[in-house]
Amino acid sequence: MSGSIGILTSGGDCPGLNAVIRGAVIKGTRIYERDFVGIRDGWRGLVEDDCIPLKRKRVRGLSGVGGTILGTSRTNPYAGGGPDRVREVMARHGMDAIIAIGGEGTLTAARRLADEGINVVGVPKTIDNDLSATDYTFGFDTATSIATESIDRLRTTAEAHHRCMVVEVMGRHVGWIALHAGLASGAHAILIPEVPTSLDDVAHWVTEAKERGRAPVVVAAEGAVLEGEDSPVARHGLDAFGRPRLGGVADRLAPMLEEATGIETRSMTLGHLQRGGSPTAYDRVLATRFGTAAIDAVNAQKWGTMVALNGIDIVEVDLHRAVTELKTVPRSRYQEAAILFG
Amino acid sequence: MSGSIGILTSGGDCPGLNAVIRGAVIKGTRIYERDFVGIRDGWRGLVEDDCIPLKRKRVRGLSGVGGTILGTSRTNPYAGGGPDRVREVMARHGMDAIIAIGGEGTLTAARRLADEGINVVGVPKTIDNDLSATDYTFGFDTATSIATESIDRLRTTAEAHHRCMVVEVMGRHVGWIALHAGLASGAHAILIPEVPTSLDDVAHWVTEAKERGRAPVVVAAEGAVLEGEDSPVARHGLDAFGRPRLGGVADRLAPMLEEATGIETRSMTLGHLQRGGSPTAYDRVLATRFGTAAIDAVNAQKWGTMVALNGIDIVEVDLHRAVTELKTVPRSRYQEAAILFG
Amino acid sequence: MSGSIGILTSGGDCPGLNAVIRGAVIKGTRIYERDFVGIRDGWRGLVEDDCIPLKRKRVRGLSGVGGTILGTSRTNPYAGGGPDRVREVMARHGMDAIIAIGGEGTLTAARRLADEGINVVGVPKTIDNDLSATDYTFGFDTATSIATESIDRLRTTAEAHHRCMVVEVMGRHVGWIALHAGLASGAHAILIPEVPTSLDDVAHWVTEAKERGRAPVVVAAEGAVLEGEDSPVARHGLDAFGRPRLGGVADRLAPMLEEATGIETRSMTLGHLQRGGSPTAYDRVLATRFGTAAIDAVNAQKWGTMVALNGIDIVEVDLHRAVTELKTVPRSRYQEAAILFG
Amino acid sequence: MSGSIGILTSGGDCPGLNAVIRGAVIKGTRIYERDFVGIRDGWRGLVEDDCIPLKRKRVRGLSGVGGTILGTSRTNPYAGGGPDRVREVMARHGMDAIIAIGGEGTLTAARRLADEGINVVGVPKTIDNDLSATDYTFGFDTATSIATESIDRLRTTAEAHHRCMVVEVMGRHVGWIALHAGLASGAHAILIPEVPTSLDDVAHWVTEAKERGRAPVVVAAEGAVLEGEDSPVARHGLDAFGRPRLGGVADRLAPMLEEATGIETRSMTLGHLQRGGSPTAYDRVLATRFGTAAIDAVNAQKWGTMVALNGIDIVEVDLHRAVTELKTVPRSRYQEAAILFG
Repeated sequence: MSGSIGILTSGGDCPGLNAVIRGAVIKGTRIYERDFVGIRDGWRGLVEDDCIPLKRKRVRGLSGVGGTILGTSRTNPYAGGGPDRVREVMARHGMDAIIAIGGEGTLTAARRLADEGINVVGVPKTIDNDLSATDYTFGFDTATSIATESIDRLRTTAEAHHRCMVVEVMGRHVGWIALHAGLASGAHAILIPEVPTSLDDVAHWVTEAKERGRAPVVVAAEGAVLEGEDSPVARHGLDAFGRPRLGGVADRLAPMLEEATGIETRSMTLGHLQRGGSPTAYDRVLATRFGTAAIDAVNAQKWGTMVALNGIDIVEVDLHRAVTELKTVPRSRYQEAAILFG
Repeated sequence: MSGSIGILTSGGDCPGLNAVIRGAVIKGTRIYERDFVGIRDGWRGLVEDDCIPLKRKRVRGLSGVGGTILGTSRTNPYAGGGPDRVREVMARHGMDAIIAIGGEGTLTAARRLADEGINVVGVPKTIDNDLSATDYTFGFDTATSIATESIDRLRTTAEAHHRCMVVEVMGRHVGWIALHAGLASGAHAILIPEVPTSLDDVAHWVTEAKERGRAPVVVAAEGAVLEGEDSPVARHGLDAFGRPRLGGVADRLAPMLEEATGIETRSMTLGHLQRGGSPTAYDRVLATRFGTAAIDAVNAQKWGTMVALNGIDIVEVDLHRAVTELKTVPRSRYQEAAILFG
Repeated sequence: MSGSIGILTSGGDCPGLNAVIRGAVIKGTRIYERDFVGIRDGWRGLVEDDCIPLKRKRVRGLSGVGGTILGTSRTNPYAGGGPDRVREVMARHGMDAIIAIGGEGTLTAARRLADEGINVVGVPKTIDNDLSATDYTFGFDTATSIATESIDRLRTTAEAHHRCMVVEVMGRHVGWIALHAGLASGAHAILIPEVPTSLDDVAHWVTEAKERGRAPVVVAAEGAVLEGEDSPVARHGLDAFGRPRLGGVADRLAPMLEEATGIETRSMTLGHLQRGGSPTAYDRVLATRFGTAAIDAVNAQKWGTMVALNGIDIVEVDLHRAVTELKTVPRSRYQEAAILFG
Repeated sequence: MSGSIGILTSGGDCPGLNAVIRGAVIKGTRIYERDFVGIRDGWRGLVEDDCIPLKRKRVRGLSGVGGTILGTSRTNPYAGGGPDRVREVMARHGMDAIIAIGGEGTLTAARRLADEGINVVGVPKTIDNDLSATDYTFGFDTATSIATESIDRLRTTAEAHHRCMVVEVMGRHVGWIALHAGLASGAHAILIPEVPTSLDDVAHWVTEAKERGRAPVVVAAEGAVLEGEDSPVARHGLDAFGRPRLGGVADRLAPMLEEATGIETRSMTLGHLQRGGSPTAYDRVLATRFGTAAIDAVNAQKWGTMVALNGIDIVEVDLHRAVTELKTVPRSRYQEAAILFG
């Protein structure tokens, strides 16, 4: 093959995207002598034909730069024309392959396009660490690091005021960031979507920590629910723009905990902070390796596959396998952590 | 004098409190051969007689430790007994002087106690930088640093999604943190309490930045108001506990900006993050110098004074002068910064 | 079993040691109701009977604290009395098991002691990542992160002066830190002990980067050798204390590169910086999991085993297997990285 | 005036240089409608006519970027042609003013050029904080922060091994970085060029700290001398390239201290690390304000002046005054710090 290769980043942004792009472009240019096309804002750029040349010079110095130089969006290629339109734009730019960097939605679209004969290779991107086909992806370590550092900070002010602090971290469907950041920061309770927890349990852990003289710290994944609670949308309703309200589990839990325990309690939602800034060294290495492995997969014409981490090795897995199962926190991992609660 | 010296930290906690305590105790022990009593949770510990011995060993390694080993509260000594009670507890512990580390409220109480003959020396603590009698105090630099680093992070994710980001920083009555963090992070608009700004102006700056290809960043002090708005309490009402709702200027401004500009906009409130964790080197040095200067003032029996920073020198100022005037951001400083907006 | 459990940390210190201790003590106290004895300075404390009680309260807040509260040394238990002495001191403190946290030397001693019937469980500690029986150990991620952040810093000053910068990182026998920190920071050349490299090659990469307008960055593991060079001791001799001189590969390579390329070149040796300070979130999680897994192994009486990371799981491996093979950087991993050089 | 304005950065690089450039260019473009010329590598670019257009777009996002986009060198304009050549190149590019950002050498050259009728305004740059005409300059806070963070790290490893650590920081002629970083990190001894200290004194402080159970930390400015020592060049000689050897005070002092105290001692030289990376918020604000003030001075035709910090205000001072006196650490400031030694 001798056409150019398109690259796109899709879905929520994630520290390490630029390192993937850089790895793929440098290796592809040097070793396989291929040209690259940057597709802007994920699938949107493909269906709307918004593409830019992507020379090696453009990717220099990017291994440690957050965000994505290509931009991103949540556009679905099937909403915007589907395979015919994708083929048309690819042909116009001489692209004979696409590297699609994205999460579960992006990779599902990539799989469908591959099934219809389009040359696609996937790179998994999930800051929440919710893809079962890979041990980890880039972005998760950065998010966990930022959350941990933030919790460390919040603890000192909580201690000064003898308060309890409830910190909400990312994780709508899975609790990996909460689990790891909670373990790393020595949290006294961790709430994750996979394991409904009662207010009584949380109040018990908080009280126990307080009685030992600590300022209790509770880490909650945004998708965590208390036993007996309704779904988030039912709880919060919609705002003036028809979006689900942002008020989350931490803001909800804090006054309930204060009432249940009598301990002054504050909440903090880390939100977008967790996905911003320079990726950690861990994520830069993993993302760079994913990028160079993705271009190897393109060269080997392994369409419909995705690169993945298995132990310390980068492997290729079938996209069908990659997107069928959510990687949730096993109950055993939660229980292992829960021993340290209270 | 040969009695012991009491130390208390009062009001909101602030990175650097422990460095003040350490500086005072080490110098006081070594040079003036004095003993120290730690008063717990500010004036509360004094009126409730909750005190601990404060040996040199207890303060070791504290220059870089956030929070306060003495704890803090917002108790007013006049609500809890006043000068008679203060004298009684001081006598019980053999204290003949008190170093009171706190903000406007604490220093006002210190001044009244000094006026009534109690031996008090003040150390200014204001993370918001709102005391006119000192160039800066410790904590402000740390808060500004954390805010700046956070805004740097938020910018990369905003850029990836072509969004506008509104970031709320501390500052109920003055806009120093917003001004400095906004300048440091290259914000496209800064809102401070001292200078009411119209939604039209902010929308203009945001649109201008967007048109140049930037992800617009707006930094707002929590006390900032838009022209024509009501007071915060009127806007937000009270929560279930009778406290003013926490929902602040960023959460309020973001949807208004999105509607006015058509640019997707997100908000982030940095809250307690800004006062947590290890103080910056700047704050550690200033706090340590305040601590050693405070014990000099005690030794020189300069009751009713407060230590302060004047250029690069530590000076003593009268507490009457220290607490009469709020140090607001001068209009000239805001205009100097506003040249970089948009 | 119902005796107490001894814990020791041995060899070079490593961020995460305290998190291992904390994890083991909390789980051991709560779940298995065991008491703990802290053995000071590794095997030295065991053979010299320098032990302290290790209550749960003593380990609180330690997950993010660098260093080791138990101290460490390079004492070999066989030099100080061997199994008989170990048994004697264990009996004196009622210890019926020991958790030994250390690197290749420590684990070899642990294996010998286990072979002679002493109840020992190992926890691998190697900042260099040189143990083949575990995917990673704690400390490596922190060292790589600090090295990466340092190289990021050095790059800006190199660029301002149009210089080349040679940065020496840890790794006497293996090049993992150099490989990962070099990849993460986008280095233009990486030198590791496993792959002798010629000065010509390095000069070529440096010149190539310079010609593209970059400030060339070379990352070298301390044990890296240039083709044709003698061993480090031959090169540097001994200092006044009979120790090998510290002057390392970076200080040696910089003038050679400057002469070969005509590009002004500076060197920096990161040294002890890489093993200091608070561990990363990654290392805190791994170390905590190692600690709780080690106490499980003690409870299950799996003497002569070591906990290890396999993918995302903690497993137990035989100490005989753990210490026989150095985990070197495979040539394929170096070549994967080398594509990005120049 | 309506010509363009040249900007150059000269001497050792310093975090904040880009923020000065950005501040000057944005304000100059927007408010005074002036064009800018970037002069490459300091005076070298001026005498060799190596200049680039400097549009507003080029300076965007630079407030937090380390290094200098203009490059720097130590070229002296008088060695390369002097005022006649400067006038010639200025005329060729239509420049009618120059903003020279640099240290004592640069500002001395600027003063001479101004004396000969060339329109020059200076901006002080001294990471060492050695200019008496300004309270602080940008870069000093960043260097002090990096040094402090590094010493914090080194302390944990020193404690684990019960070692003494000697850390060398920048400061050939003045000890400000050593003083502030030493105070901030709670050093047990600080050595600065202004106050010769005996080995006996240092050994005494180190021993005292060790006896209290601490790992002693000594911070030494690179220009610090022990009483009775020769000059650095006499001590170290020249290397193979005729440059003074890099081996510094820390490497020299560590074995002497080890011998004098019997405490195992390690040394670390922070070197270039201290001037790299993103400037602190403090430095970004100060540098931005210097940049906008410099363009005000150009607009007001205040040739031969330099902007400076006086308390919290930016002022203009005569370059004659600015470069006559080295700002050394007063003995009183050293003694204030020395109270905390040992």
